Amino acid sequence: MAIDFTLTAQQRELQLAARKFAREVLTSAGAAELLATPEERFLATRPIYEAMVGAGYLRKCIPAPAGGENTGLVDMAILAEEFYSINPSVTLTMLGTVLGLLPILFGGSPEQCGRLLAPFLMKHGTPLAAFCFSEPGGSANADSPPPGDGVRTTARLAGDDWVINGRKKWTSSATGWNRRGADILSVVCRTDPNATPDRAISIIAVEGPSSGIVFERAINSIGHRAHLVPQFSLQNVVAPRSNLLGHEGGGLALTATAFTATAALVGILGVALMRAAFEFALHFARTEKRGGVHPIIQHQAVGYALADAKTAIEAARYLSWRACHALDTQSPAAEELAVQAKIYGSETAVRVITDLLRVVGIESYDHDAPLGRLLQDALALPIFDGGNMGIRRRQLHAIFMRPDYDHLAASGAAA
Amino acid sequence: MAIDFTLTAQQRELQLAARKFAREVLTSAGAAELLATPEERFLATRPIYEAMVGAGYLRKCIPAPAGGENTGLVDMAILAEEFYSINPSVTLTMLGTVLGLLPILFGGSPEQCGRLLAPFLMKHGTPLAAFCFSEPGGSANADSPPPGDGVRTTARLAGDDWVINGRKKWTSSATGWNRRGADILSVVCRTDPNATPDRAISIIAVEGPSSGIVFERAINSIGHRAHLVPQFSLQNVVAPRSNLLGHEGGGLALTATAFTATAALVGILGVALMRAAFEFALHFARTEKRGGVHPIIQHQAVGYALADAKTAIEAARYLSWRACHALDTQSPAAEELAVQAKIYGSETAVRVITDLLRVVGIESYDHDAPLGRLLQDALALPIFDGGNMGIRRRQLHAIFMRPDYDHLAASGAAA
Amino acid sequence: MAIDFTLTAQQRELQLAARKFAREVLTSAGAAELLATPEERFLATRPIYEAMVGAGYLRKCIPAPAGGENTGLVDMAILAEEFYSINPSVTLTMLGTVLGLLPILFGGSPEQCGRLLAPFLMKHGTPLAAFCFSEPGGSANADSPPPGDGVRTTARLAGDDWVINGRKKWTSSATGWNRRGADILSVVCRTDPNATPDRAISIIAVEGPSSGIVFERAINSIGHRAHLVPQFSLQNVVAPRSNLLGHEGGGLALTATAFTATAALVGILGVALMRAAFEFALHFARTEKRGGVHPIIQHQAVGYALADAKTAIEAARYLSWRACHALDTQSPAAEELAVQAKIYGSETAVRVITDLLRVVGIESYDHDAPLGRLLQDALALPIFDGGNMGIRRRQLHAIFMRPDYDHLAASGAAA
Amino acid sequence: MAIDFTLTAQQRELQLAARKFAREVLTSAGAAELLATPEERFLATRPIYEAMVGAGYLRKCIPAPAGGENTGLVDMAILAEEFYSINPSVTLTMLGTVLGLLPILFGGSPEQCGRLLAPFLMKHGTPLAAFCFSEPGGSANADSPPPGDGVRTTARLAGDDWVINGRKKWTSSATGWNRRGADILSVVCRTDPNATPDRAISIIAVEGPSSGIVFERAINSIGHRAHLVPQFSLQNVVAPRSNLLGHEGGGLALTATAFTATAALVGILGVALMRAAFEFALHFARTEKRGGVHPIIQHQAVGYALADAKTAIEAARYLSWRACHALDTQSPAAEELAVQAKIYGSETAVRVITDLLRVVGIESYDHDAPLGRLLQDALALPIFDGGNMGIRRRQLHAIFMRPDYDHLAASGAAA
Repeated sequence: MAIDFTLTAQQRELQLAARKFAREVLTSAGAAELLATPEERFLATRPIYEAMVGAGYLRKCIPAPAGGENTGLVDMAILAEEFYSINPSVTLTMLGTVLGLLPILFGGSPEQCGRLLAPFLMKHGTPLAAFCFSEPGGSANADSPPPGDGVRTTARLAGDDWVINGRKKWTSSATGWNRRGADILSVVCRTDPNATPDRAISIIAVEGPSSGIVFERAINSIGHRAHLVPQFSLQNVVAPRSNLLGHEGGGLALTATAFTATAALVGILGVALMRAAFEFALHFARTEKRGGVHPIIQHQAVGYALADAKTAIEAARYLSWRACHALDTQSPAAEELAVQAKIYGSETAVRVITDLLRVVGIESYDHDAPLGRLLQDALALPIFDGGNMGIRRRQLHAIFMRPDYDHLAASGAAA
Repeated sequence: MAIDFTLTAQQRELQLAARKFAREVLTSAGAAELLATPEERFLATRPIYEAMVGAGYLRKCIPAPAGGENTGLVDMAILAEEFYSINPSVTLTMLGTVLGLLPILFGGSPEQCGRLLAPFLMKHGTPLAAFCFSEPGGSANADSPPPGDGVRTTARLAGDDWVINGRKKWTSSATGWNRRGADILSVVCRTDPNATPDRAISIIAVEGPSSGIVFERAINSIGHRAHLVPQFSLQNVVAPRSNLLGHEGGGLALTATAFTATAALVGILGVALMRAAFEFALHFARTEKRGGVHPIIQHQAVGYALADAKTAIEAARYLSWRACHALDTQSPAAEELAVQAKIYGSETAVRVITDLLRVVGIESYDHDAPLGRLLQDALALPIFDGGNMGIRRRQLHAIFMRPDYDHLAASGAAA
Repeated sequence: MAIDFTLTAQQRELQLAARKFAREVLTSAGAAELLATPEERFLATRPIYEAMVGAGYLRKCIPAPAGGENTGLVDMAILAEEFYSINPSVTLTMLGTVLGLLPILFGGSPEQCGRLLAPFLMKHGTPLAAFCFSEPGGSANADSPPPGDGVRTTARLAGDDWVINGRKKWTSSATGWNRRGADILSVVCRTDPNATPDRAISIIAVEGPSSGIVFERAINSIGHRAHLVPQFSLQNVVAPRSNLLGHEGGGLALTATAFTATAALVGILGVALMRAAFEFALHFARTEKRGGVHPIIQHQAVGYALADAKTAIEAARYLSWRACHALDTQSPAAEELAVQAKIYGSETAVRVITDLLRVVGIESYDHDAPLGRLLQDALALPIFDGGNMGIRRRQLHAIFMRPDYDHLAASGAAA
Repeated sequence: MAIDFTLTAQQRELQLAARKFAREVLTSAGAAELLATPEERFLATRPIYEAMVGAGYLRKCIPAPAGGENTGLVDMAILAEEFYSINPSVTLTMLGTVLGLLPILFGGSPEQCGRLLAPFLMKHGTPLAAFCFSEPGGSANADSPPPGDGVRTTARLAGDDWVINGRKKWTSSATGWNRRGADILSVVCRTDPNATPDRAISIIAVEGPSSGIVFERAINSIGHRAHLVPQFSLQNVVAPRSNLLGHEGGGLALTATAFTATAALVGILGVALMRAAFEFALHFARTEKRGGVHPIIQHQAVGYALADAKTAIEAARYLSWRACHALDTQSPAAEELAVQAKIYGSETAVRVITDLLRVVGIESYDHDAPLGRLLQDALALPIFDGGNMGIRRRQLHAIFMRPDYDHLAASGAAA
């Protein structure tokens, strides 16, 4: 082991195969974004998602020990960059499903894993899972003690079943293809009305479709136009007692673990969008003369703006890889690096794509060009998966206050 | 005269009346943005535009000497801030009409002014004018000598008429309510195929509807969703010889004069959008607890982000006012200040609204909240009306290279 | 009254006279910065300061009602921009003296004003005053209730005298030309050991030289190399009871008033430094070829960087003027605008000068060029006079939380 | 081989040993910066430099094939981060010597390497080498054809000797400890007065001391206060014909190769300075209360500012490592990545340290605290070693214009 940025032969093969699949299959999902309503747009991506599952890409996101083919977050990053740069909406549907499974993967017993993961290991169908964390009114303070509301969704035991009531929002794919629920909903809920937040919250797997899931609306989101982010309520939704994931009361810790893993990946999602925007802007600059004599790339201001964009892309990619590697190797700096990759990759993506719009100029204001859509997608990155202001920087702030914090932990660890 | 930031009684009255009108009348234009196609959205704003005309606001944008009621750009800025903060699309329709009239106002003979401006001085109807400058393929280098294409639209004399051929794009409202042409199109075109650009280009007023105006498409723009930016061709469009505005060959100079005036106003458009975004974010922060104990404004990070936003708003407003005043008083620094107000106000708006999205967090990703739409509108500001990268900074660059450039001209001139 | 950016004839005369005086007299003060120790550097500026006093400029900073010639902060801004752009160190010595007099001007009785201000109204000598607020260990939380230390310097009554003990730091010119004290020290101190901070703190005028003032060291500051910022202690320093300024216990409020006035001026100090840096960089770019064929201003990257710098300068100047005008006219938005001018002008100055260093390139790394020194001076602006992070943004944060906060107050008020 | 961020056991040992040596030995070099003149400061570091050589660190910077112990740029980055974070001046003296040797290492024959490198492979003495590229008047356009001056220093053959005339500036250590010349000067000069720049320029090794080296002055630089950057002339300086390095006329290409290698390292120099500043600011925030109740790190604004700083540090480190690795493995993306690491690391360092000054507040304005000095050192990074504006972004601009440019080359290459 050594500091190295060379892909293994398998990683390179994954990268090239994913790039080819994205170009050949995911590209066509773009048309879905032109449909009128969020649900129409989402439903129109189903064949593409089916193709992704069929080609084994969902399996490639599930760890090998759990029956899938994934060997780590670095590989996930390589895959995600290729897919997300071509179609963020449908890629997010797949990644959202993986997120929905994380409480099972991180907290589930072997029995739960075997039972609940099975549909997601097939190479057919369009299985969806959803991580149901956020609630109407916001969940940045889900860990708030009273009088803060914290988590408002509740589950109480009735015999051998949990009976769940509450409302959720912004939960990717949660109401599924038919409004009646994804195949698995990992529902963050309060299982003890009296305990402190670090003991009161649990995650329960609900298997959809389920009768108490009441679709309210599909959010008309700024970007990810063909991805479903519903608002819905759970009205006496029933799940067997054995579907509680991890230990009772450990829900916030399990949530934190899941969102640390995704944070490292969000960094690479930013890279993917910037890369797509850069590719378009570079091609535009090399070919368009805008009434003048030379392609506009010959203007120094254009070249320098491209230089700044590309520099940011490269910086974001290696920080994200570094965070993924830290999680894969369980580095003590892993949490810090994952959050940093999320913050940096997401905010850099918004800034860089905004700048590239100016390189292209007014043509970028037309939805026939991709930049507007890429920016609309990018705007999600700093505010979803734990908003950078309300949650992610707070995590770093908390890390810095730990008495044993070592600011050099990330820079060096021997093999 | 003295350095002063106090509105006159008339200016304050204009501000308050415009604020009231905007809130009561323009607010309802927002619904138009939800319709499916660009043309449907544009047409749905027609009653609102009619109300604006009916209330005399278009007249208030036309200088008093030309028969209107406008007394200067500072007043325009006060009006524009109020309207644009409530509805950018329909306000841009009005301002685009004013822009379309600028070549008449700046270059027209008394006869032309009297004849061509008349419909725009009424307090009824929905008269539209359009400044037809940009062309497919871009016009950042409209002043390019060969072999650059420069301006591709041509006009040749046939008897006492100009016959115009070419294509135009991004020209606000140019094809009018019925695809057959706005009431006035100020068409930038090449009247001398052999002269150098500073003598070859002229502006000709075409009175619509006109049979050779061939609508190609309404651009599906990122923002200003209910404003019409068409692409169209002029196929043997005929205009009387007497409709050439200013002197023959003076088209680029007249264009520059028009775009200097608008530049100062774009600064205030940025202020208007930021102000609307700030108002929403401030209210959100003061009322939302996001699961916690206190409204989130009590978090220092929220308060500081709001502080930075508000500081930028104030800086942009006074720079814009200063530019408007410089134009009103024909200061030697007027061109420089106008361009600076445009660059600063436009780019600051994009940055500030982007930041405010993060203050609000994920709720801002829902089109039910205004921030996404405000950002989509703001994205136009740096790239329309002369892109900041391809045109506006080039103007400043050219100013700095003038041998007699005085960098203190803006800071002091005695009464 | 109307929105206007035209200087009155008197203002223009002030501007030109100050510009001439600065160029002819202040320029020579630059040599003082090359001396070895902070005190040597400070002492070497004394003749220049004497010339400033002699030419009546200190009088021009003291309001007319108090016997001086100042007519408002807008005039102060015009003067300060001219002086500070040529020599920040000695200009700060004059402005620091004015700050030291503000508690007298704002809170003093007619008797106190008459008695204490007299030496500062003369056109001879080198009178110094100092506002003694900050203490070793920091004073960002001077208003902290226990167990925070808040203000640690104390004054207790002994007969008809205050006896003051404590330590101060960062107090411009406080120990005077001879280490024994400026002519006036406005000392912020705790006069009631038991009251809450809003009633416990007062400001007492100490007339130097005074035997209990014990010089500890002159801080070797990053910039303002020829300005004195001492650390010293007050050991049983005696002042007559009648030297308490304003009402007993009103010290923090009086401090806040003083620092609101200075905030608006700090904005213009940023303008002054940027302007000096821009002037140098522009000249460099117009004359230097760096081995190439053309002056480097012909490179687009250079022209655009200059454009961004100049735009920021203009934005900062008018925001500062607006804040000064708001204070002069007692606008309800005055506090907000003053703090915003301070934050914006100070941070923009650091950013812009940093960028201009890159335009000039490696030559700017030589102290023979002015840019390094200008940046070192600029670095003070965001952190002195109430640090932007610990104090100034906190002020804005507090303003936004007021129930009656009106975010449009700054944008319009009728004459 | 695989994407990996784990140090080998040898790398970790190097890191820890260098950290220990820096803390124990380099720390004391800080005192040199307080001396009055640049030369005094430089001379005062000589014992420290001697200790570095004695401990074998110079040898560790010379590649193993050339007789040293260096195994690649990744190792150099690990070493440089440790040293430079403690003392930039003396570390730059060592790195400048390595730069001076690069033309020998990259272009020298075995005979030249054996002969010229010998003194630098010893573990004693204070050997200095200097890369003499920049000239008074600037060298950003060293490759300019006439009428641009390009490289003005000339060498003509006189028998078996080169006779060199010209002036150089900003050349680290070039005049050596005694003004008479470093042990090796790699002098970029024009060997053919008539050829085009790509054939006219060569690099000749001059062995000092040499009689024609005429010291003009030691630049009083903004930072790196104890490092020598002289201006000097070469007046009929003689070097044997056999000291021409590489092939005649290949000087600019050899220069470019050298400056690509250093670019990757400059990135890590930025990391080193940020890391030192972060360490100080973090400690300050965790311990200082500034008059309040809690350490200021408990303020959210402080925690968030630290979060942003730390995120930038991590991003810069891995981009720099990636660039070093690309150079070590001769990746096709190596040049692009090296320049990006230079631009990003250098400009980020200036920005981050500037921000950290605000976290610490006014105390950072005192040279007793390290932040001012760190910033002054950091200011060099964007403008030395090829200014980012005049040279480095131009390199990227040129890369993007190459017809075969592959924007994904950096992201993936199989083992």
